[in-house]
Amino acid sequence: MTTEGQELEGSGEKLGLGVAARLSRYLMVLTQARKMGKETISSQELADYTHVNSTQIRRDLSGFGKFGKRGVGYNVDALIGEIRQILRTSGQHNIALFGAGNLGTAIAGSDIFADHGFSVVALFDTDPAKVGTRVGNLVVRHYDEMRDVIRDEEVVVAVLALPSAVAQGVADDLVEVGVKVLFNYTEALLHTPPEVTVHASSPAVDLLYALYFYLA
Amino acid sequence: MTTEGQELEGSGEKLGLGVAARLSRYLMVLTQARKMGKETISSQELADYTHVNSTQIRRDLSGFGKFGKRGVGYNVDALIGEIRQILRTSGQHNIALFGAGNLGTAIAGSDIFADHGFSVVALFDTDPAKVGTRVGNLVVRHYDEMRDVIRDEEVVVAVLALPSAVAQGVADDLVEVGVKVLFNYTEALLHTPPEVTVHASSPAVDLLYALYFYLA
Repeated sequence: MTTEGQELEGSGEKLGLGVAARLSRYLMVLTQARKMGKETISSQELADYTHVNSTQIRRDLSGFGKFGKRGVGYNVDALIGEIRQILRTSGQHNIALFGAGNLGTAIAGSDIFADHGFSVVALFDTDPAKVGTRVGNLVVRHYDEMRDVIRDEEVVVAVLALPSAVAQGVADDLVEVGVKVLFNYTEALLHTPPEVTVHASSPAVDLLYALYFYLA
Repeated sequence: MTTEGQELEGSGEKLGLGVAARLSRYLMVLTQARKMGKETISSQELADYTHVNSTQIRRDLSGFGKFGKRGVGYNVDALIGEIRQILRTSGQHNIALFGAGNLGTAIAGSDIFADHGFSVVALFDTDPAKVGTRVGNLVVRHYDEMRDVIRDEEVVVAVLALPSAVAQGVADDLVEVGVKVLFNYTEALLHTPPEVTVHASSPAVDLLYALYFYLA
């Protein structure tokens, strides 16, 4: 049993962000496979569709007691159930959105994250006309509450969908409060310390990733 | 030399969509690596970041004469130059956008595709107030021109970012004119023949793919 396996097994233990993201990725492909009427799937097929290598997949899945049958593979339904369960109980990672404009509200209003191990727990803005309004299951909060919410909810990913002019200030606050991964949808070039990862994103960049996922 | 290698070598031969998407994916990681000051990269490192297996990567790259040095890897700068060149000359695949609303214009206005083997060649709408206006390098065209443009420009991917109520009609037209891959950003559940692939997308779904790419 690998360390990673043990990490997955530990009851009450939180899954690492990387493991959770891989499981979520398997789940997306499995859900698609079920739609297409597939009852079993091999680790090689999962590898082909997720672009995670099959050794890693077998290690991740054996970590919570799922072993594919040689020549048959994994039962799709059962695996979907197990991954959902594990993501729900120990794989949820929290995301906070900054900016309740078009993009922020489009992301906040989606229910795709909940099923896939991510949870959008807060949407911040400073516009008095937006603060207090409802978007999906969230109520837009004032940016002043940001520090408390990020700490209380253990937010690990922040999404910046706000005017470029305020992006660096928000990034500085996020770094200070300990967020380690930023998705930057603004045009601003952000300066952050080396331990913080900044991903320059846009609807176009994200579409490119979706193209990679489906076409590569 | 593999068949794939020969496919890549052939002068004037168009790269397959899958090969082009993989090369584009390598390019994105290589560009990131260069930013971080890396001068060489191994196929295993490329595999770790792109989630394409290293055998496939070596096959793709040896196909156009690039062989990594054992224990050293590929020269990052040289590989970026080569991949850009090959994507530009035989790896461009054309995308058409339907709907010049917020999402459509955000995607159309981006210059990320050109560098990565995809080209947004047309943006269609039916709104007289939008047709003829400029978005990035494109002029919004009337939907009536769709068939001719798709055929002339050999469009392979269509992106539907328009009202749900008209999505099925547009999908039917696209199927008829021969487009094989649809990214559906509407809420509509599209009915298409089996040879056409429909990807239910949204800014939230795309963010999830970006999360997978960066975190898994």
